[in-house]
Amino acid sequence: MEKWRAADRLLKFSSRFASAVNWNNSCKSKQGKYFYSVATTVHRNPLFSIISPDDISYFKTLLGERGVVQDALALDAANTDWMGKYRGSSKLLLQPKNTEEVSQILKYCNSRCLAVVPQGGNTGLVGGSVPVFDEVIINVGLMRNILSFDKVSGVLVCEAGCILENLISFLDDEGFIMPLDLGAKGSCQIGGNVSTNAGGLRLLRYGSLHGSVLGLEAVLANGTVLDMLGTLRKDNTGYDLKHLFIGSEGSLGIVTKVSILTPPKLSSVNIAFLACEDYTSCQKLLLEAKKKLGGILSAFEFLDSDAMSLVLKHLDGVRNPLPPSIHNFYILIETTGSNETFDKENLEAFLLHSVESGLVANGVLAQDINQASSFWHIREGLPEALMKAGAVYKYDLSLPLEKMYDLVEEMRVQIGPAAKVVAYGHLGDGNLHLNISAPAYDDNILAKIEPFVYEWTSKNRGSISAEHGLGLMKAAKIHYSKSPETVQVMASIKKLLDPNGILNPYKVLPSSLLSQN
Amino acid sequence: MEKWRAADRLLKFSSRFASAVNWNNSCKSKQGKYFYSVATTVHRNPLFSIISPDDISYFKTLLGERGVVQDALALDAANTDWMGKYRGSSKLLLQPKNTEEVSQILKYCNSRCLAVVPQGGNTGLVGGSVPVFDEVIINVGLMRNILSFDKVSGVLVCEAGCILENLISFLDDEGFIMPLDLGAKGSCQIGGNVSTNAGGLRLLRYGSLHGSVLGLEAVLANGTVLDMLGTLRKDNTGYDLKHLFIGSEGSLGIVTKVSILTPPKLSSVNIAFLACEDYTSCQKLLLEAKKKLGGILSAFEFLDSDAMSLVLKHLDGVRNPLPPSIHNFYILIETTGSNETFDKENLEAFLLHSVESGLVANGVLAQDINQASSFWHIREGLPEALMKAGAVYKYDLSLPLEKMYDLVEEMRVQIGPAAKVVAYGHLGDGNLHLNISAPAYDDNILAKIEPFVYEWTSKNRGSISAEHGLGLMKAAKIHYSKSPETVQVMASIKKLLDPNGILNPYKVLPSSLLSQN
Ligand SMILES: Cc1cc2nc3c(=O)[nH]c(=O)nc-3n(C[C@H](O)[C@H](O)[C@H](O)COP(=O)(O)OP(=O)(O)OC[C@H]3O[C@@H](n4cnc5c(N)ncnc54)[C@H](O)[C@@H]3O)c2cc1C
Ligand SMILES: Cc1cc2nc3c(=O)[nH]c(=O)nc-3n(C[C@H](O)[C@H](O)[C@H](O)COP(=O)(O)OP(=O)(O)OC[C@H]3O[C@@H](n4cnc5c(N)ncnc54)[C@H](O)[C@@H]3O)c2cc1C
Repeated sequence: MEKWRAADRLLKFSSRFASAVNWNNSCKSKQGKYFYSVATTVHRNPLFSIISPDDISYFKTLLGERGVVQDALALDAANTDWMGKYRGSSKLLLQPKNTEEVSQILKYCNSRCLAVVPQGGNTGLVGGSVPVFDEVIINVGLMRNILSFDKVSGVLVCEAGCILENLISFLDDEGFIMPLDLGAKGSCQIGGNVSTNAGGLRLLRYGSLHGSVLGLEAVLANGTVLDMLGTLRKDNTGYDLKHLFIGSEGSLGIVTKVSILTPPKLSSVNIAFLACEDYTSCQKLLLEAKKKLGGILSAFEFLDSDAMSLVLKHLDGVRNPLPPSIHNFYILIETTGSNETFDKENLEAFLLHSVESGLVANGVLAQDINQASSFWHIREGLPEALMKAGAVYKYDLSLPLEKMYDLVEEMRVQIGPAAKVVAYGHLGDGNLHLNISAPAYDDNILAKIEPFVYEWTSKNRGSISAEHGLGLMKAAKIHYSKSPETVQVMASIKKLLDPNGILNPYKVLPSSLLSQN
Repeated sequence: MEKWRAADRLLKFSSRFASAVNWNNSCKSKQGKYFYSVATTVHRNPLFSIISPDDISYFKTLLGERGVVQDALALDAANTDWMGKYRGSSKLLLQPKNTEEVSQILKYCNSRCLAVVPQGGNTGLVGGSVPVFDEVIINVGLMRNILSFDKVSGVLVCEAGCILENLISFLDDEGFIMPLDLGAKGSCQIGGNVSTNAGGLRLLRYGSLHGSVLGLEAVLANGTVLDMLGTLRKDNTGYDLKHLFIGSEGSLGIVTKVSILTPPKLSSVNIAFLACEDYTSCQKLLLEAKKKLGGILSAFEFLDSDAMSLVLKHLDGVRNPLPPSIHNFYILIETTGSNETFDKENLEAFLLHSVESGLVANGVLAQDINQASSFWHIREGLPEALMKAGAVYKYDLSLPLEKMYDLVEEMRVQIGPAAKVVAYGHLGDGNLHLNISAPAYDDNILAKIEPFVYEWTSKNRGSISAEHGLGLMKAAKIHYSKSPETVQVMASIKKLLDPNGILNPYKVLPSSLLSQN
């Protein structure tokens, strides 16, 4: 499990680094706020009230002193996002201890027209988890009880403030795993994961949270508690409302409890690192792997030669796993199964066949846990390597598999020699992490990337956000991925469930669609 | 593939049988309609218009003669459900050829306040697919084109009228399978499957349609076409609206296109038939199977001794697979993998260990396709055996695994010697098919079953419909499975998307919640 530790170190490192580099990307005026990287001006909604001493008294009576945080240092942290790119100016952070308190808080805020931001571990990457102006921050981090675990069905029920890593450890003792895992697991909360529909490293094997979350409890803007906390795998009684909340980024309700189907922990994990000479071979290899490795395939990650060169240059202690040259593409394959011997032989046979058929140019199967984690380190170290290399423009795209690498190549032509285009991602999920690495942030470069990247993605029916959500960063860009009619229905559902628009304003949907008239 | 054929034969048989037995369960009056088995009176909504010659002319101009069916025989079939239990009196069946026509039909019906029933293969089991009164029937069966199939990602895009079996055959040639399969596959349409969130025989392995359906196109009551037809595995841009339509039983929109992730066809299938002496052992065996068989476990079905006795008595040519005695419980395990030798050895080792540890009292591994299909025939022949045994009250329940069999035992006490309680189902999914088999339908027996079965299910946080939906049969019973607040939100979403309530009225939600004032 070395690889996760590496990712957590990265988390700390990048956080510091990002604050230093990007800090002045956002600048405030009295009325509006301009975000450099998104070229969007957001104005405070004048219908929202400003917090008063009476409000504070109310919350203190409701939550006690501990639940009402006004301390400058704590507020500073809660106002600033993980990248140091977005910063709000909230004066109040509330920490409810149970659903009833969340309900009372929202009921009050709704009646007073006080805007709120639900915040989890604050590891989101699209500016969704911090206030834009003076919204009240609500963090359910004190609600961190595991409510039940059924060893037969594997169903875990817990409060939304549970840290993902704690759930993983808890399940480990029971012989189970969470169906999702991410680099931010040491900080992110399951409620935040659900609210962003987080993808992560196990999606290829265990599917999305729409499949594994069995139930939710959520509190609506007016304080109504929606008990959708089923623990059943099958339930066809009416509309399955929980899906509205999965991925709604705190804009429809606050998630307070989660019920989730967890898979048993399997004992045999094997990892191979392979080289392919062209993108077509990568695609074919994926198809073959799905067929031949069937149920045991648990990761199929890819990186291109620029990504590999970057890692070799900027990450300490990383060596080329397939020397001497750099190949055009690399694939990391992981299998997870229940039978050491069979699984390994299975993977070996698959690799041998792939080499013989010419799909794979070269490859190596990890012989021990150290080698395995050194392979993962290459793939997972990419964000860190990019940070070290200078300025980086990051795009998290879903694209039809056959088109995915065309974008990378077109982007190279589009950008020219001014910047490097570095591609990697979850090939098995059709998720491309497209990074443009430049010596420094530069408006000329940005102008070559946007809107080109969004338009290209849209033209090819891709998604401008595979896993990170829209947040503040891409709220106004939703039309690149969704049809106007669909966005209109989203807006009407938002208005239906949150008529005053107090829940996470300015995020997810274009503000123009949500205005009262 | 013997087993599916058996299921299709059953479909034809049961249909005839059911008409004969249940026919006069529903009786009409001018104003209201009383359904014997649900003890619910439904009144025609007087706000709905009655079809006029002008309407017919409009539809003929729009769809051509072929698209407007008024023939008595065809209407009779479309007015009658698969069980012969529900019967409407619609005078008009429309058959649009494309989304634009569906849109025009709905726009017109909405403006005229003409109620409609979307109908697929009409194999639904809860009275959802037929009119209650004179609603216009809309069947998208002519929209049966496969629009695209991507061999690398396995994503199939097709029109909603495609018959499930045709999709299965199409994929078979491509080396893929549908992630769902059901006994009704020869008739049911993929649009109907999506609209009922059908479960079926592969759910344990491939999850629910909320996981595998990647995108939809649906037409709202006012004719608006919602293009949510993504083909991406990951897309976090706004609320994932398609989930509202999955399982909404035609009450929110007409599904016109479907995009679905299909798994590759795997070559090695193994089937074992086992006996356990108590329910606890069945549960433990499931847990072990999930752990030891990991990714290859594809079915875990159970039946009790009463179920086995019934099959042996009423189904021709079935022999006790584990003679001489009848055991308390039977489990059918299926594995599907990619490696013949490994998979078989894996299953054998698992079975051996289960026998040694005492979980399994006796067992047999199918040696060839004939033996395999004879095992499946026992499990799949149960509905037929029940029909032959006399009258049967059927309940499709989800229950927490550890409680599931308690209900069966309590039901036996509750009913006494007047009827037999027969239990089987998808244990791996927590789905119990509870059947009360009696010599004849009898109000005294029904009074002992209902509301007891619903109350018990509700008390134990189960679902009163695991896979069949609510339809007309259980619309008024939704409160047994969903909280009042949740049902209220469902009703407000229904009103938002279908303000005139023209889409499949009287179904899914209690009519009282949907009245205009
Ligand atoms: C190092 C690193 C690696 C990452 N890797 C991945 C990855 O592999 N895959 C991936 O998908 N993401 C990844 N992310 C992004 C991020 O971690 C996820 O989006 C995560 O799910 C956010 O959880 P959180 O608790 O930190 O939520 P926050 O960041 O606090 O909030 C995120 C959004 O959810 C809302 N929210 C939070 N809690 C609740 C609640 N209880 N109720 C309602 N709304 C709520 C917020 O309002 C906000 O809009 C990564 C981030 C980092 C820093
Ligand atoms: C022998 C047999 C075995 C079965 N086995 C299973 C099983 O294992 N698992 C399971 O879950 N179900 C099972 N069923 C029930 C049934 O087959 C499924 O519910 C199936 O998905 C219905 O599909 P259909 O096309 O026949 O829809 P229909 O019966 O025509 O309609 C069902 C509902 O969906 C709506 N609908 C249909 N098409 C559309 C559309 N295009 N747009 C919007 N709404 C639409 C209708 O209004 C209705 O409410 C079985 C039924 C039979 C007869």
